[in-house]
Amino acid sequence: MIQVGIIGGAGYTAGELVRLLINHPHAEINFVYSTSNAGNKISKIHQDLIGSLELEFTDTINPEVDVLFLCLGHGNSVKFLSENTFSNTTKIIDLGNDFRLEKDKVFQDKTFVYGLPELQKEAIKSANYIANPGCFATAIQLALLPLASEGLINSDVHINAVTGATGAGTSLSATTHYTWRDNNFSYYKPFTHQHLGEINQSVKQLQNAFDSEILFMPNRGNFSRGIFATLYTDFQGSLEGAKNLYKEFYKDAEFTFVSEDELHLKQVVNTNKCLIHLHKHGDKLLVTSVIDNLLKGASGQAIQNMNLMFGMEETEGLHLKATYF
Amino acid sequence: MIQVGIIGGAGYTAGELVRLLINHPHAEINFVYSTSNAGNKISKIHQDLIGSLELEFTDTINPEVDVLFLCLGHGNSVKFLSENTFSNTTKIIDLGNDFRLEKDKVFQDKTFVYGLPELQKEAIKSANYIANPGCFATAIQLALLPLASEGLINSDVHINAVTGATGAGTSLSATTHYTWRDNNFSYYKPFTHQHLGEINQSVKQLQNAFDSEILFMPNRGNFSRGIFATLYTDFQGSLEGAKNLYKEFYKDAEFTFVSEDELHLKQVVNTNKCLIHLHKHGDKLLVTSVIDNLLKGASGQAIQNMNLMFGMEETEGLHLKATYF
Amino acid sequence: MIQVGIIGGAGYTAGELVRLLINHPHAEINFVYSTSNAGNKISKIHQDLIGSLELEFTDTINPEVDVLFLCLGHGNSVKFLSENTFSNTTKIIDLGNDFRLEKDKVFQDKTFVYGLPELQKEAIKSANYIANPGCFATAIQLALLPLASEGLINSDVHINAVTGATGAGTSLSATTHYTWRDNNFSYYKPFTHQHLGEINQSVKQLQNAFDSEILFMPNRGNFSRGIFATLYTDFQGSLEGAKNLYKEFYKDAEFTFVSEDELHLKQVVNTNKCLIHLHKHGDKLLVTSVIDNLLKGASGQAIQNMNLMFGMEETEGLHLKATYF
Amino acid sequence: MIQVGIIGGAGYTAGELVRLLINHPHAEINFVYSTSNAGNKISKIHQDLIGSLELEFTDTINPEVDVLFLCLGHGNSVKFLSENTFSNTTKIIDLGNDFRLEKDKVFQDKTFVYGLPELQKEAIKSANYIANPGCFATAIQLALLPLASEGLINSDVHINAVTGATGAGTSLSATTHYTWRDNNFSYYKPFTHQHLGEINQSVKQLQNAFDSEILFMPNRGNFSRGIFATLYTDFQGSLEGAKNLYKEFYKDAEFTFVSEDELHLKQVVNTNKCLIHLHKHGDKLLVTSVIDNLLKGASGQAIQNMNLMFGMEETEGLHLKATYF
Repeated sequence: MIQVGIIGGAGYTAGELVRLLINHPHAEINFVYSTSNAGNKISKIHQDLIGSLELEFTDTINPEVDVLFLCLGHGNSVKFLSENTFSNTTKIIDLGNDFRLEKDKVFQDKTFVYGLPELQKEAIKSANYIANPGCFATAIQLALLPLASEGLINSDVHINAVTGATGAGTSLSATTHYTWRDNNFSYYKPFTHQHLGEINQSVKQLQNAFDSEILFMPNRGNFSRGIFATLYTDFQGSLEGAKNLYKEFYKDAEFTFVSEDELHLKQVVNTNKCLIHLHKHGDKLLVTSVIDNLLKGASGQAIQNMNLMFGMEETEGLHLKATYF
Repeated sequence: MIQVGIIGGAGYTAGELVRLLINHPHAEINFVYSTSNAGNKISKIHQDLIGSLELEFTDTINPEVDVLFLCLGHGNSVKFLSENTFSNTTKIIDLGNDFRLEKDKVFQDKTFVYGLPELQKEAIKSANYIANPGCFATAIQLALLPLASEGLINSDVHINAVTGATGAGTSLSATTHYTWRDNNFSYYKPFTHQHLGEINQSVKQLQNAFDSEILFMPNRGNFSRGIFATLYTDFQGSLEGAKNLYKEFYKDAEFTFVSEDELHLKQVVNTNKCLIHLHKHGDKLLVTSVIDNLLKGASGQAIQNMNLMFGMEETEGLHLKATYF
Repeated sequence: MIQVGIIGGAGYTAGELVRLLINHPHAEINFVYSTSNAGNKISKIHQDLIGSLELEFTDTINPEVDVLFLCLGHGNSVKFLSENTFSNTTKIIDLGNDFRLEKDKVFQDKTFVYGLPELQKEAIKSANYIANPGCFATAIQLALLPLASEGLINSDVHINAVTGATGAGTSLSATTHYTWRDNNFSYYKPFTHQHLGEINQSVKQLQNAFDSEILFMPNRGNFSRGIFATLYTDFQGSLEGAKNLYKEFYKDAEFTFVSEDELHLKQVVNTNKCLIHLHKHGDKLLVTSVIDNLLKGASGQAIQNMNLMFGMEETEGLHLKATYF
Repeated sequence: MIQVGIIGGAGYTAGELVRLLINHPHAEINFVYSTSNAGNKISKIHQDLIGSLELEFTDTINPEVDVLFLCLGHGNSVKFLSENTFSNTTKIIDLGNDFRLEKDKVFQDKTFVYGLPELQKEAIKSANYIANPGCFATAIQLALLPLASEGLINSDVHINAVTGATGAGTSLSATTHYTWRDNNFSYYKPFTHQHLGEINQSVKQLQNAFDSEILFMPNRGNFSRGIFATLYTDFQGSLEGAKNLYKEFYKDAEFTFVSEDELHLKQVVNTNKCLIHLHKHGDKLLVTSVIDNLLKGASGQAIQNMNLMFGMEETEGLHLKATYF
């Protein structure tokens, strides 16, 4: 069994990792590190785990684990790895944004590979260090990459996406207070969301000459889980051509599927799937992409990357029952 | 007291009219027509009215009322007016879309005036027949008209808006079933929503040479009331200039206000307000507009029009306590 | 115009008072005191008020106002009145629980009258100092008092009630975090809620020999506003007899009504109403009571008390449009 | 692989069975019968299954399957089995209420065993025909049975429980319309819910002399999944004694656990668990019980029963990732 360590154990993504790993056939949780909760049962914080897990949080690290998941606030992975040393056989998957950009990917003697399997599965298989993509970045890239792969993004891309409140993390805040968010809607960081960096980087990786603008409006929805993203850009080809392009691009993808029907968010909640739908209006191609922000957008994709890095079936531990309702 | 008749009394917009009119100081409900509910107390359907109203639905029309509100499904106002005759002193406010477009505005001997007070208050004051604007159309026009008034819409307009479930009417349907819509999100009618006609018409009324495209993505939100709309288009001026333009345009508006702060939907729920916020990103102007779809987007604006038509204070009966939470 | 001061202006109940008072025909907000927000516009905090109110929070008190509303955390009204002095003609309405019980009602030279109009309207009319009832306490007393008035509560009373998240106040907390509360349900303080004191006190005021137990289970619902309460107790009479008793008891009540039909919470949201429904099962009488916790359960009732104290119409400023959806 | 047939495939419980069975290591869906959807892909109705299942609904029955799940409206299982014949080696699990009561348990040559594993696991193991318990009935029995097993229910039991909208089935109805149910709360069938029959039957099975009344108030919550139930009754023993009794009773239960902490609904959503919490107030024992109404309350428990009937691990296919948020 692969021995797993989790750093930053009290947050949402760590909780999701624990939920996935307790049912993973080839991995085992070795420790869950949380200094503020050390000595408490994990099920005191992740309270659905009563009856499933007796393990306690620890403030002691086992530097010999096979794989380490970093579930820390953005910027804190660098800090953590500077202050702690692990075996050089320990693989690391960082769920933060510290190592996602080319300019940040080398740290100490480690080179982080951007962990979007639909973009570069082979590179992930041979990587020891993974920068796990951001949630919005995952949904949006999966909607854009097939176009980029054929050099077809030649005008501005207009994106509108809405995320659930788990996207804002566990910290209490005005915009995650129930009475505020219930039955409410709002945007934030218009056109300047931090995920634009990794999105642009991947698009250029596939379409070197890309020089249009990606205009991204992120919104806060009144639900807890999921991302619903739509984008459109000029596209001269036919709808059938677009469908063929996307289906071909995702023919080996284990979790990303093209739907003939219009989509709604709950189709993917509590799964590791991404569903894509295509629609043509005049010379615009409209692409819809839905994911669960905590799974395909974070912890599920991290497990998918772990599976690939250890030569396991990509879907191991990720055959999840959708909530749907 | 102005005597009021309401046709199509069981729907959402009729219910809102009743709620507004029972507190209106200068108007009185004369009858509420609903053939399917005739003889039942209105409070059997609009159940918050227990203790507030003893009146029953009727299937008999009083053709001598001072003002008639038509709350019928789209297309049914023409049918109703063809089959029923009213005094030629009876003013009519149609909440459907039968008479909103120039090509439809004359019916029998009646000429309907498009009832958006921020666009043409004087025309409304002297009108006898009003085509009340659509809900999305109201939110979007109030975001666009100041630009159009100065001839400043010279590139495509990208609109994303989300509406509550009351926007879909009282009929039971798959996408208004609780288990489907709860914590869900989806779009519908991409780029082809029926309100585009009246939006384009009003923009051209102010900016005759307008020939860009209005690209509108409507979404279904998991809340009951309200519309949150964002749009952006190229704008060469400064943010300050834009603010001044909007504030000047709305300086006499009783319900439309420019907010210095970013907006959220619940600021306007259960009010007749429209709040507008402006933001500049590069050469794009981002305009946010929020309204209550049933009030400023329907019944509240209908009362506002009634007030104007009868020479009353525009705000009469519309000093509403916001729900906010 | 009656001059009004509000202490503790940033909270939910103060916000509701402001919303009510800006439309009250005979009262005027003189100041809204909030030391932490002094100098900021009130509409910066109560953000629906953009366009309705230019007033700022202040940290200066006007001791000559006609009426003062205390919207402070429980225990803080005593502290505030110890440290601040007002004109002896200033009437005071405390929305906290400092003065609700007989043992607490005299403070300094002031005697506070328990402000439940359905219980003692005449006492309120001649009072200068009012202890405004708690939200659960209001819903439950209005369900119980008609029985107590006839000495009919002679066995245990079993109460289950659910409240919205505004009941927990504006402080951020684990159980008001959106991701926790969304689609969730839980109880708290089983059988020991602090409102039991005032409930028992009022029951005994009407039924001196009452010595049964009131068993009250309070619950947290996943909505923002409202209280839905059911209670049952042994009742030998007929359902008709019960209805007549309740209708008689509330015949002069301006906001409390007996409904022939089963109730749901949203019938009263954003109104000052209490709706009551009666049902008989075997020898049990089931009483349902629904209110808006912030209005009839707090600020609306406070205005109702103000109206009575100043000899105005009891309903002045409280003709509210229900949200309903 | 066990071959499985599902009858009534378009409903909620059938959908949940499909979701569970596609990941079950020892069972395989042979057919999903739905006359109204025959020929359509199952993923057209259960839309989360895009990418997971290519199977279509059928209107042809395979009478040789190993196990048949009946997911029909109450009363329709009798009708279906009267009109269709299966191999006498086909085991049947009925999710309706047709065979739950002693008086109904024999039909044709079949004897149905009540399928609550915590009550009678051995009887289920040797059964060929199972009457799967109702959702409320499961939550409530699991809260009551330990007491009954020791003959300790000697006074009335007061139950209040709230269920999600999936409890009302897929039919569109006024009380499952989004605008009605959103942020609403109500009760239904006070004291007369149809599950009282099976609850009383099981209590008497364990406590033959039981003759108190079970007073059950069912409520409609504004969420889609889950049941939160509280009940209290007189209990002379200590809290520790109660905890020991419940822990002992459930020591071999695979899915039912006693929690030391107070519970909330989302701890069990999308799992097959039942969590129980105990609290003592005076001489009352308060028992809280939470389940997912579609899993432990229906399809999950049906799979649990299938596992037992076929000699598999009881938990096979039921290691579910909780949604939690």
